[in-house]
Amino acid sequence: MTNDLRVGVIGVGMMGADHAHRIVDRVSGATLVAVSDPDTARASTLAGQFNGVRLIADPLDLIADEGVDAVIIASPGFVHEEQLLACIEHGKHALCEKPLTMDTESSLRVVEAEATSGRPLIQVGFMRRFDPEYAAMKALLDSRSLGRTLVVHNIHRNKTVPDSFRSEMIVRDSLVHEVDVCRWLFGEEVASIQVLAPTPTGLAGEGVLDPQIALFTMAGGGIVTNEVFVNCQIGYEVRCEAVAERGNATIGLGQGVFVRRDNHYGGAIPDDFRDRFGRAYDLEVQAWADASRRGEVVGPTSWDGYAATAVCTAGMESLLSGKAVPVELANRPDPGCRA
Amino acid sequence: MTNDLRVGVIGVGMMGADHAHRIVDRVSGATLVAVSDPDTARASTLAGQFNGVRLIADPLDLIADEGVDAVIIASPGFVHEEQLLACIEHGKHALCEKPLTMDTESSLRVVEAEATSGRPLIQVGFMRRFDPEYAAMKALLDSRSLGRTLVVHNIHRNKTVPDSFRSEMIVRDSLVHEVDVCRWLFGEEVASIQVLAPTPTGLAGEGVLDPQIALFTMAGGGIVTNEVFVNCQIGYEVRCEAVAERGNATIGLGQGVFVRRDNHYGGAIPDDFRDRFGRAYDLEVQAWADASRRGEVVGPTSWDGYAATAVCTAGMESLLSGKAVPVELANRPDPGCRA
Amino acid sequence: MTNDLRVGVIGVGMMGADHAHRIVDRVSGATLVAVSDPDTARASTLAGQFNGVRLIADPLDLIADEGVDAVIIASPGFVHEEQLLACIEHGKHALCEKPLTMDTESSLRVVEAEATSGRPLIQVGFMRRFDPEYAAMKALLDSRSLGRTLVVHNIHRNKTVPDSFRSEMIVRDSLVHEVDVCRWLFGEEVASIQVLAPTPTGLAGEGVLDPQIALFTMAGGGIVTNEVFVNCQIGYEVRCEAVAERGNATIGLGQGVFVRRDNHYGGAIPDDFRDRFGRAYDLEVQAWADASRRGEVVGPTSWDGYAATAVCTAGMESLLSGKAVPVELANRPDPGCRA
Amino acid sequence: MTNDLRVGVIGVGMMGADHAHRIVDRVSGATLVAVSDPDTARASTLAGQFNGVRLIADPLDLIADEGVDAVIIASPGFVHEEQLLACIEHGKHALCEKPLTMDTESSLRVVEAEATSGRPLIQVGFMRRFDPEYAAMKALLDSRSLGRTLVVHNIHRNKTVPDSFRSEMIVRDSLVHEVDVCRWLFGEEVASIQVLAPTPTGLAGEGVLDPQIALFTMAGGGIVTNEVFVNCQIGYEVRCEAVAERGNATIGLGQGVFVRRDNHYGGAIPDDFRDRFGRAYDLEVQAWADASRRGEVVGPTSWDGYAATAVCTAGMESLLSGKAVPVELANRPDPGCRA
Repeated sequence: MTNDLRVGVIGVGMMGADHAHRIVDRVSGATLVAVSDPDTARASTLAGQFNGVRLIADPLDLIADEGVDAVIIASPGFVHEEQLLACIEHGKHALCEKPLTMDTESSLRVVEAEATSGRPLIQVGFMRRFDPEYAAMKALLDSRSLGRTLVVHNIHRNKTVPDSFRSEMIVRDSLVHEVDVCRWLFGEEVASIQVLAPTPTGLAGEGVLDPQIALFTMAGGGIVTNEVFVNCQIGYEVRCEAVAERGNATIGLGQGVFVRRDNHYGGAIPDDFRDRFGRAYDLEVQAWADASRRGEVVGPTSWDGYAATAVCTAGMESLLSGKAVPVELANRPDPGCRA
Repeated sequence: MTNDLRVGVIGVGMMGADHAHRIVDRVSGATLVAVSDPDTARASTLAGQFNGVRLIADPLDLIADEGVDAVIIASPGFVHEEQLLACIEHGKHALCEKPLTMDTESSLRVVEAEATSGRPLIQVGFMRRFDPEYAAMKALLDSRSLGRTLVVHNIHRNKTVPDSFRSEMIVRDSLVHEVDVCRWLFGEEVASIQVLAPTPTGLAGEGVLDPQIALFTMAGGGIVTNEVFVNCQIGYEVRCEAVAERGNATIGLGQGVFVRRDNHYGGAIPDDFRDRFGRAYDLEVQAWADASRRGEVVGPTSWDGYAATAVCTAGMESLLSGKAVPVELANRPDPGCRA
Repeated sequence: MTNDLRVGVIGVGMMGADHAHRIVDRVSGATLVAVSDPDTARASTLAGQFNGVRLIADPLDLIADEGVDAVIIASPGFVHEEQLLACIEHGKHALCEKPLTMDTESSLRVVEAEATSGRPLIQVGFMRRFDPEYAAMKALLDSRSLGRTLVVHNIHRNKTVPDSFRSEMIVRDSLVHEVDVCRWLFGEEVASIQVLAPTPTGLAGEGVLDPQIALFTMAGGGIVTNEVFVNCQIGYEVRCEAVAERGNATIGLGQGVFVRRDNHYGGAIPDDFRDRFGRAYDLEVQAWADASRRGEVVGPTSWDGYAATAVCTAGMESLLSGKAVPVELANRPDPGCRA
Repeated sequence: MTNDLRVGVIGVGMMGADHAHRIVDRVSGATLVAVSDPDTARASTLAGQFNGVRLIADPLDLIADEGVDAVIIASPGFVHEEQLLACIEHGKHALCEKPLTMDTESSLRVVEAEATSGRPLIQVGFMRRFDPEYAAMKALLDSRSLGRTLVVHNIHRNKTVPDSFRSEMIVRDSLVHEVDVCRWLFGEEVASIQVLAPTPTGLAGEGVLDPQIALFTMAGGGIVTNEVFVNCQIGYEVRCEAVAERGNATIGLGQGVFVRRDNHYGGAIPDDFRDRFGRAYDLEVQAWADASRRGEVVGPTSWDGYAATAVCTAGMESLLSGKAVPVELANRPDPGCRA
């Protein structure tokens, strides 16, 4: 559409390339128009996968470009301040991967520059707030149906990290997600933090304190326990349990918000197939649109529709008699159709 | 984008309206350009919610229209044959909600017309094939790591249906999904069907046989049991358990593919945060793009980025001492930013 | 105690030997006094493991013996009729492993002989009625809080069976448990039964129809589906889902009665530690009594009690300051005590 | 039996009365012979429920009595020292409810007196070590298949406690169980303890710090987090998650030991019906023995055995034809038998 948001991506490593594909393949109302990366070969390869995506060598030029409405910043953290200040200067919306910047002082400069500009422009990539499970837990806690939130327990585990990973990165790059989650869930700042390390696993890099246990005291008196374990060997595991006055809620079990209250544990069953299969419909229509543009059919074919009708017709007959009814099908006329 | 698929929607009841919003809000590479419905007021209201969407009174005109590349058919089943044949005639791709048509003969006519046209054009709306859980189960069964599939058990429950719902609609409109799922999972046709009804629930409409138990015999000798219960009072519940030679797999528990084999039950833990939070990233970037077009910020702000940096800086200090470290924050300069 | 029930066990294969140990080790108020088995070596070995247990060659002599109050019959099914009739004749209580007898006519003769005797004497070994999960489900269904029971789905799987297992044994020896469970849950007789076999697993014995699907129609109009799969390779799995007018209840998931109703799934959390740890208390006191008779201590020692007191004393001090308090312990004086 | 352990119970409040019934009803090889309690009416009532149980006014007389082999101490903690020392003096085995005594010094005196006596006599009532889930977790951790244990997370919640409950009792009476569990799981002493309290729930008594968060540092460097919340309103909840180098194990979910490792979550399925239904067999035979002593039958009757045989006979016929076979039953001859 002509009024699509024209997006430039700065930094096309794993995260930036993911975002570029996301804009092209799955986001409605946005068009990828430009990419920038110091590794110009990598940027050029990515741009070449799409129609009409420009390679702009200097990220500040990309930000300033009149054909770019908004910017995804997936570059290393130490260049974020400069790029964010440029976005503010040019009035461009920015989605900035965490961290905002590498230290408190530079982060505050960005906050103040945006405030001075008078326009909200910067979104930080704390994507957990958009996870349906976290969002549902937040809504439940905010409803106060469980009373006031008292304690939160977080688990954050990665299968392994490279040997270059250092102890403090567990706090800065991993625990930072729990920091944001707790500020958001409580609606309060963190008042103090304590970080403890047990005797480390033998499977972390030399000298790396892994796992770590962190405690937050929230400004309103809540307490948060966190385990971060980045060489847990198991896989990727994130769980969050919020303990409130009248019950607790856990997410990250893969089954929505799991609640314990009133002598019961469990969760919600939706009213409607649109809740259960909403994502299936989205994926179906996206797959259909993609295939139609290629002149193909990738889902259930007309033959599948015919066969289903034939079975159901036999089934309605059986409902009257209770006996088994054979299903007779015509010869399939079109072996060329993809099943 | 200029090469978006231009989509018309025929029938704008619940399903058709959902699809219209889906095309506009969540599907990349597709543009809604036209709607048609005998209830022109309803169609007009829907069209008015979007820019540049035409109302075309006659669905056959919509299909024939040069500005329409592909059609979503969400009209009642008894007009599907005519509309599908028109799509075939004009070479338009169609996503047709089930049923394909109302009886076996007309369904076969559609299959044959499409085959004669020489082009695959029709996809039937059996959306469960696109559900991530069903798709993962299909992949697991096809891998043959559990051996050959022997038996499938399906549960399909709706909270309630209107009193106008009749016994045979349980087979035709509900069980039809299980018919497609089993044909797809086994890769075989259904050879016979038997439908039994227990003494009905007292909470269904007068004379309605609900629940119903259906048995399928598959062409290759597999057996399928099905329970369909459309006034179960609980909510919407769909489960599917496939029993193979070396294990079984269940979906619909809300936790991916749940497998029992080798004296263990359980499921998979992903390697990577992109598996766990992939959908959160999609929703994050879609929300960011939508907000940016409105000149707003809806996610974590620069202040959130600043505060997280401040907490982690204190945390790295605590990691060295094991003591609690207070977090000092500047005054927040911009109360106007949305949190 | 002098008024213990004096029990004789007939048949000391796996089941009978289990029952003998159960009487001696875990059942209060019963004493094992005699065993009988055609394999006298096996019977003699078992008797020799206990004090004061007699070996009686002829099972009818065991039944008639004045020192035997009650009999556990764990012999093969084809001798049950004779042994049960002898129990009735001598007025001895009998716990008879299933089947009652091998055919309907002989079973009826036993029923009639017991009725004529005027005393209830025979209990059949359908032990699932004593399983806490089945018992809780029965209580829930009988409460009618979910309304009338409409449909039951049973799953019954064994890891493997010997090659000597034949198709009809799946019905007679395995499915018989589901027959009893359904008669008990519904409180009704089975009116008809239909048994279907898919193409068998390649991992069953030659010619064995495994798995099998059985349907029961209950006298009151309920329907039961059953899967019995005796070479499922997975392990031992028994599940039962009862579908009632206002909800369903499932057991065999290892988590008590799992209920779906009112848009929620889940189960009960007990009020009290005695519910949660009731069995732990039983096992603790049994282990303590057994060890005390041997002059030993097998559980937590006085040192464990001392150390716990020391930690909690430090903890109460920490509660006042919020600081970590070291725990100082004396040297352990008695290395000879078992930990 | 003549060689039963003759047990006296001191203190017949809730715990002591429970233990008295346990000895009589469910423990094999032990006989209740005496009770003692300052509330003689309560003790007399309890003794009157059983045959041959004496009331002994002074607990020290009970301990000294020649007819008492072993003692369960369920009196208040402040009299434990005197009673335990008397047990040691008379060489009587004792099962002592926690706490061992009220302070570290008196606990150490008991430890030393027992050591001096040269005989292990005292078991402390930390019953969690006998809980099948905790025992299975301990076995798993000790196997080292998950590597070394690094961190343990405990949750301990009571629905409510009386208003008389004070903050320090959370540590002394509740957390004490976690103290023992962690000493036992790690096989190490607790080196230090830190207890923190968030802003309390509004549903605890005035001034009570509830919930509390406790951290243990183990002598070998492990860390333990604990939440104790004694007015959680939900019910009784105890969970324990052990994090080891190659995976983690959780109990208290009601489904045995739940393990995450190697990109999988889940648990064990037993090989055998004796694992799954072992407790049902115990309960069945206990119920049968109890009923037989009363001249009753409480389980499945001979009619149940007959009906099951009739259904299975029809089922074996149906297996040959695939058709439904009606089940014909005789008239039930004995309406007096309990079903």
